[in-house]
Amino acid sequence: MAKKNAPQRKVRRFAGFDIGGTKLYCVITDENGKVLGKGRKKTKPEGGFKGVMERVRKTLNEACKDADVKFEDLEAIGLGSPSPIMADGTAVFAPNLGWRNVPLSKTVSKMTGRPVFAENDVNAGTFGEYMLGAGKGAKTLVGLFPGTGLGGGIVYHGELIRGENRMAAELGHVVVQVDGRPCGCGHLGCLESYASKTGMGKRFTQEIVEKKRDSMLTKECKGNYGNVKSSILARAYKAKDKVVTEALHEAARYLGIGVGNMVTILGPDTVVLGGGVFEALGKELIGLVRKAAKTSTLPEESLKDTKIVLAKLGDDAVALGAMMYARSCVVAAK
Amino acid sequence: MAKKNAPQRKVRRFAGFDIGGTKLYCVITDENGKVLGKGRKKTKPEGGFKGVMERVRKTLNEACKDADVKFEDLEAIGLGSPSPIMADGTAVFAPNLGWRNVPLSKTVSKMTGRPVFAENDVNAGTFGEYMLGAGKGAKTLVGLFPGTGLGGGIVYHGELIRGENRMAAELGHVVVQVDGRPCGCGHLGCLESYASKTGMGKRFTQEIVEKKRDSMLTKECKGNYGNVKSSILARAYKAKDKVVTEALHEAARYLGIGVGNMVTILGPDTVVLGGGVFEALGKELIGLVRKAAKTSTLPEESLKDTKIVLAKLGDDAVALGAMMYARSCVVAAK
Repeated sequence: MAKKNAPQRKVRRFAGFDIGGTKLYCVITDENGKVLGKGRKKTKPEGGFKGVMERVRKTLNEACKDADVKFEDLEAIGLGSPSPIMADGTAVFAPNLGWRNVPLSKTVSKMTGRPVFAENDVNAGTFGEYMLGAGKGAKTLVGLFPGTGLGGGIVYHGELIRGENRMAAELGHVVVQVDGRPCGCGHLGCLESYASKTGMGKRFTQEIVEKKRDSMLTKECKGNYGNVKSSILARAYKAKDKVVTEALHEAARYLGIGVGNMVTILGPDTVVLGGGVFEALGKELIGLVRKAAKTSTLPEESLKDTKIVLAKLGDDAVALGAMMYARSCVVAAK
Repeated sequence: MAKKNAPQRKVRRFAGFDIGGTKLYCVITDENGKVLGKGRKKTKPEGGFKGVMERVRKTLNEACKDADVKFEDLEAIGLGSPSPIMADGTAVFAPNLGWRNVPLSKTVSKMTGRPVFAENDVNAGTFGEYMLGAGKGAKTLVGLFPGTGLGGGIVYHGELIRGENRMAAELGHVVVQVDGRPCGCGHLGCLESYASKTGMGKRFTQEIVEKKRDSMLTKECKGNYGNVKSSILARAYKAKDKVVTEALHEAARYLGIGVGNMVTILGPDTVVLGGGVFEALGKELIGLVRKAAKTSTLPEESLKDTKIVLAKLGDDAVALGAMMYARSCVVAAK
């Protein structure tokens, strides 16, 4: 009875977490995703799952302090993490964190006493853009995020498509070139092997080391082209470095073909492009992506019904998406 | 009041129609899709939309007679037709029928006095396999049907994915080979340009006409390799004709890569393979498809959770799928 008569809390607070391989980032928000406080720490995955969980708690503390709220004020906590996540919140396999089958949601829930909902980080970022960013108002949204690799996510009529085994939407690993360039995943011709920084790295090595072509990268990267910083790519592109320009144009073309494939398959009304490369050079490359999409979209007129736009949430996408995902789970549970 | 007190009809009857470019095929069924009667006529698209509609009425009459039911006994009529279909039942563009923006559902409804629901034919066929065929019990199902072209459909948690503009799931036109073989659609490297009979036809011309290789097809096809009958392909394959075997193995490999791509994107629990080629040679080729799917599915272990199976409904798939689709619309409207 005491509970029943207690005054209804007017404010609803949420936490959203980006648990990355190098950084932990937490936001405290109101129910609409307005950020009220932040916390940041290094992940230090070498401390193992327990060590990282302890740092998650500290980061959450810091964010709560910043927002002037307590753990018990949080209606729910959302986590985004680079792993497939099972329905019970188990993180199946996160190579960057050294995790295999760890009880992610349960552990954070026990630690905080709050309901916790975990999601794959790229899925969370896609959901963030869908709810609060460039995809606001979309019905079907496809997100493609070229950075070191190429992550992707799909929201279909309000829900993330995860696949029946919760491991799908690996959009960077759609094969677009049978017997093509080797991909880090072991397959040949994945979209990622052309349209990500790792993919471009293979081209840089070929052009600069094997063909001995001139490029600003020679000095900037000291022979290591595997994952050139997006800011360096942007500088070289703006200085009209030929090797870099060719690689970025090839990447944009392949990405566009990948976009067109997704339009052919799912007919989304919105495609969001983000990630490091598009945060640095989105305005310069998006026209090429749209042009290439025409060569793979069927019927081509579908592109008239598809907005291809740049992501808006930047580094906040995963944390905000995780928060909105947690909110949606709380609503669904009611 | 009269209606309220009328005895409830115990039997529920449905009609399902396959309106193809050459044949009209109609089934009358009970509510579970059990076929009670059939009707068949040639389409004769040269008669225009009105002429075809008149033949549709006659075919329906024939099927009703065969099943001993009247138009008014039909709870609903489902139509499958080779066109994108808008929500109001307009068929947007059916090149095989010479239709552009014709009011398909409305016309048949006016003609019969019954509720009519139209769907794209490949979507209907996919839905048929999902409800009554090889995909019974599936949650997410992808259908791929290589014949003259390569049609595809997706059912996600009970509903067809049509795309926001109702023109998507064109799975034969996913580009799998950038700058690859020309496809009938005008693009390069579509799955259809390798894994359909039209696609194989290009290879046959190359091997037999240009390279002057021996093949049974020389005699069978008289120089026209564009759309070799599946039964001839089957005979040549079983006779170990080298040109045909190589083409079919290539087609199966590409189809497998296409299957893997769909698993990587959507994580279906079931993939159904049908269409003319797989009706004739499914048992012979499905192993190659499964093997090739491993080279494009990420994570590869997703394939453990994905059944790749042969379609079961054969020529009845579109009509039965259309009927089940109509049934689902009636249920949704209640």
